[in-house]
Amino acid sequence: MIRIIGFDADDTLWRNEDIFEQAHERYRALLAKYHPRAEVDRVLFATEMKNLGLYGYGVKGYTLSCVETAITLTRGQVTAGEIEEILATGREMLAHPVELLAGVAAVVPALARDYRLLLITKGDLHHQERKVAASGLAAHFHAIEILSEKDGPAYERVLRRHGVALDEFAMVGNSLKSDILPVLQLGGAGVHVPYHVTWQHEHVEIDPAALPRFRQITSLADLPAVLPQL
Amino acid sequence: MIRIIGFDADDTLWRNEDIFEQAHERYRALLAKYHPRAEVDRVLFATEMKNLGLYGYGVKGYTLSCVETAITLTRGQVTAGEIEEILATGREMLAHPVELLAGVAAVVPALARDYRLLLITKGDLHHQERKVAASGLAAHFHAIEILSEKDGPAYERVLRRHGVALDEFAMVGNSLKSDILPVLQLGGAGVHVPYHVTWQHEHVEIDPAALPRFRQITSLADLPAVLPQL
Repeated sequence: MIRIIGFDADDTLWRNEDIFEQAHERYRALLAKYHPRAEVDRVLFATEMKNLGLYGYGVKGYTLSCVETAITLTRGQVTAGEIEEILATGREMLAHPVELLAGVAAVVPALARDYRLLLITKGDLHHQERKVAASGLAAHFHAIEILSEKDGPAYERVLRRHGVALDEFAMVGNSLKSDILPVLQLGGAGVHVPYHVTWQHEHVEIDPAALPRFRQITSLADLPAVLPQL
Repeated sequence: MIRIIGFDADDTLWRNEDIFEQAHERYRALLAKYHPRAEVDRVLFATEMKNLGLYGYGVKGYTLSCVETAITLTRGQVTAGEIEEILATGREMLAHPVELLAGVAAVVPALARDYRLLLITKGDLHHQERKVAASGLAAHFHAIEILSEKDGPAYERVLRRHGVALDEFAMVGNSLKSDILPVLQLGGAGVHVPYHVTWQHEHVEIDPAALPRFRQITSLADLPAVLPQL
């Protein structure tokens, strides 16, 4: 019986990947006179992956990789004005208002009455804290856990710290790779709420429906109904 | 009687500000043909402070502010090659090996036998975690707390989470502003270990010697001797 629910934040409670997509569209437009969009996408993603070990996740690392890629792709022809435009896009992403997804504003406070809620997110500490504060949801969570990576060992550490038994725990999120599979593999439950865009890095091939204690819902509004089944 | 010790990390357990100073010296040299160093220092610091609310602390935000400042100070004349040099410096800072300060390798394991140790640091989550892992010290700490800011409320949250009473707690660090004053003001003890360089943002004017439960030492090797006095 589920007693504790872990919530992912970006693209589960509030919009995030669209903001990256909009920024990326502006980036493609900026470099369109130098390269076709497929080439821009390919080289930027390769640069992000090269830098991920040093930069980690988040807008600042993305912005630095965008500047680096622009210099590479233009063989140094990119102008200072164009680089300033990339930096400005990064600052706008960080300053972007937090927009809750459908159902969140009602479901989170309602569930907080019957369950203990944890917010478990990854990425940039400073930016994630600012988004949690701006969301107005912080008071409903027993704890906010901002991690640099969401894999099996990271979930084990968080759950041990809060004294959470895996048979009482369900993780809710949009990423099969970061939110669902590691928790299912530990023996917990997972509720997948797909988002309409997924960052390439979060794609996985495994079919979690073959694993026990898994549900997929289309909106967070459906969450209260599936929890008793897990 | 002190039972729990909080340790700052950057410039308390390992070198950090020198790495920023070296990077900054390269940055001044890069812009020397455009502006005198005092002007470079002034505009970069103003840009860092303007961006601090969005970027938070750490190398990535510093690097982004360096690029922005270079564009401003050169009125767009900075070359792509020079910007690539700024990015490369940022990546080198993130990849820099962790160098423990004098006494740390002996004192931390020794104190871990008699006290419960917490690592309480601020800055970039991903980079700080990598440094903790590389330091070889992680096993001696009961918990690692990476915060976006180290002020009174932040210390209160951490100490409450770990069930720490303030009369049993001493914080050790190089920054009066971030490590010592907030803890003294809450009623805990503070041990200041000055480092030979202090980031301008960490300067404070208050005299903590007027506050009770404060000690200053010149090396972490002196820490075991002062703890029983607090």
